[in-house]
Amino acid sequence: MILLSTLPFKTQKSIPSGSDNRGTGLLLQAGYIRMTLAGAYNYTTLGLRTLRNIEQIVREEMNAIGSSEVLLTALGAKENWEKTDRWNSVDILFKLPGAEWKEYALNPTHEEVVTPLMGEFIQSYKDLENCSMYQIQTKFRNEKRAKSWLMRGREFLMKDMYSFHRTQEELDTYFEVVHAAYDRVFERLGLADSTHYTFASGGDFSKYSYEFQTEIAIGEDEIFVCESCGQAHNKEIIDENSFVCVECAHTICDRRIVSESANIFKLGSRFSDVFGLKYQDADGQSKNIVMGCYGIGISRLMGLIAEKFADDKGLVWPIEVSPASHIIIVIGDHLDQAKSIAKLLESSGHAALIDDRKTGFGQKAGDADLFGIPNRIILSDKTIEKWGYELKKRTESEGIIIAI
Amino acid sequence: MILLSTLPFKTQKSIPSGSDNRGTGLLLQAGYIRMTLAGAYNYTTLGLRTLRNIEQIVREEMNAIGSSEVLLTALGAKENWEKTDRWNSVDILFKLPGAEWKEYALNPTHEEVVTPLMGEFIQSYKDLENCSMYQIQTKFRNEKRAKSWLMRGREFLMKDMYSFHRTQEELDTYFEVVHAAYDRVFERLGLADSTHYTFASGGDFSKYSYEFQTEIAIGEDEIFVCESCGQAHNKEIIDENSFVCVECAHTICDRRIVSESANIFKLGSRFSDVFGLKYQDADGQSKNIVMGCYGIGISRLMGLIAEKFADDKGLVWPIEVSPASHIIIVIGDHLDQAKSIAKLLESSGHAALIDDRKTGFGQKAGDADLFGIPNRIILSDKTIEKWGYELKKRTESEGIIIAI
Repeated sequence: MILLSTLPFKTQKSIPSGSDNRGTGLLLQAGYIRMTLAGAYNYTTLGLRTLRNIEQIVREEMNAIGSSEVLLTALGAKENWEKTDRWNSVDILFKLPGAEWKEYALNPTHEEVVTPLMGEFIQSYKDLENCSMYQIQTKFRNEKRAKSWLMRGREFLMKDMYSFHRTQEELDTYFEVVHAAYDRVFERLGLADSTHYTFASGGDFSKYSYEFQTEIAIGEDEIFVCESCGQAHNKEIIDENSFVCVECAHTICDRRIVSESANIFKLGSRFSDVFGLKYQDADGQSKNIVMGCYGIGISRLMGLIAEKFADDKGLVWPIEVSPASHIIIVIGDHLDQAKSIAKLLESSGHAALIDDRKTGFGQKAGDADLFGIPNRIILSDKTIEKWGYELKKRTESEGIIIAI
Repeated sequence: MILLSTLPFKTQKSIPSGSDNRGTGLLLQAGYIRMTLAGAYNYTTLGLRTLRNIEQIVREEMNAIGSSEVLLTALGAKENWEKTDRWNSVDILFKLPGAEWKEYALNPTHEEVVTPLMGEFIQSYKDLENCSMYQIQTKFRNEKRAKSWLMRGREFLMKDMYSFHRTQEELDTYFEVVHAAYDRVFERLGLADSTHYTFASGGDFSKYSYEFQTEIAIGEDEIFVCESCGQAHNKEIIDENSFVCVECAHTICDRRIVSESANIFKLGSRFSDVFGLKYQDADGQSKNIVMGCYGIGISRLMGLIAEKFADDKGLVWPIEVSPASHIIIVIGDHLDQAKSIAKLLESSGHAALIDDRKTGFGQKAGDADLFGIPNRIILSDKTIEKWGYELKKRTESEGIIIAI
């Protein structure tokens, strides 16, 4: 349990001026985040717990499909970025000068690290039976103009996963396994209904790339959703004036404003070829390896969820994302009882925040709404008189008394 | 539980050539880590679990003294580093060129971030009753020559904590609270006996700085331990030819080869002054704030522990650090029983690794030793005949049969 009185961070009375959007404004007002520089945010305790919860949902779903967690370096070797021809062509690549005229990449993505890494472990076809690994790690992008919020940063938290396969068919099969895992992630984040698996313009090795686009009014992207089969298309792959669904050839569509929350790519052998990755087949032949890569923006999702669900009173977190499932407002001398309730909640897998600050009920109730915690408990002389506490959901206006 | 057959990483038959020391060599041989470039390591699944376990010990002890976890940015604002006069004076500071002639610091330490951050939250003397926060975060140092192992890297994982106080006395009191928490960390890491709280040369605001130096043959530092009171002195603060203990004035000492595993500093108002941090006292007066900072090298400790406890068969992890408490070697058709045992272990707070690979007993037994897991279980026809499994500690040579 966390006692609010012990946190060195505070809420503010109103949204700070200059916030680009309401979600980020509320995160600032609630004291969840603070900016170091445009596009780089500090997470205070409650903000970090929120971020870690999103991270944990993603981790559990990646583990569930048998991917192995790793942690790759933020620093990249220049020679590897040169080998893949991306040292000069990727304009958002941060290039870091080191001592003695060395130069490093600050990795915005990790093909240049993970491909040579796996080259040290892959020899035989048996090594490719289940060859998938992911990390949850800080990424860097040299953005010209970073929006001053969590959704396009110079520094941000990503889950990036990479898979290595013997054949295109095996990649295609695994790709759908990941697709399904991503659907479960969006389900748990409360974003299933508003997130569209979208065809976007492809790369060297596939007709399309595949994006998960989440509907949000302040989104930077546009998709067109087929009214017949529901397939979403990034606007970059269609003629807006004469839409034709690539799945069912229907010609009527809905336009939606969205933000990209995840993407998955079939890389083919683009990177494995460069780093000379091969495997020996059962019959002794040396063969090419095909790869897939799969990203989810963890900190971006936090900004997106904050913005999407906020109401006029503050943030509204889905239960699995919220820094706590319950906030217990203590009025008067009932801290021990609050701690007992918190312990009980924690023993059944919940997490409780206790508002034991020496402030009035008004501020506590306002902050409970601002924080966006799904369940609010009030413990006061009045509720104790009724032998209980008041329980109210964040999204409802009336509470009920629950017997202690 | 983790099934070894599902991990895309492998052990090697012998220590790779070119390893600087046995500990790093064994970490490479066991497939726990791989280098991206000198001083920057990737952690594979078992390596990451080891790192996370060290992290968790530190986290629990910092939480226990009421410090609040946060996550600060790796990118630093140049103007803040200029304000503290460290943009040009800190030679290991990575300076990162951004788009449009911007320039950032890649933070090797976070006073330049956390001090202005807390300036947004500290107003009154009440805000300084418990004002301490820490993060576990990736740090960067522009080393001229990085040793090719975990102990002095260009990129490494640190726990850094910062505290803000009204008076020097309050800082002094909290400083000892942290000192005691660090002692508990070293106890849990199995390093209590070999780690010395050491006086080293001070900064602007204190006579000494305080280091935790751990005895290790390949250490880069030297300390002198008073034979009378046990106080350790970094060689930089004494005259080696005529030692005088700064605590008890005794003149005989032991010289030890050590490596710095943690340090704690009294910063005084060096940083709070620069960023104009003040608090309003109970009587309305504006007063200065004094700060402390407290580091522990998480990845460095992993390298240090690997090196320190390794024996001729491989790594030897302390139980709380080990990626698993038990490794279950399955010979023959007993995987289901192994999973049952693993579940039972996990229900009592342990973590199990199951070696279900299609390799012979010799390699499995050798790898179990190499991995350094404290307890080895063998499950085979032979042990099942005796109605049980064999349990052997990593540090013992004979196992015993335990009934299932």
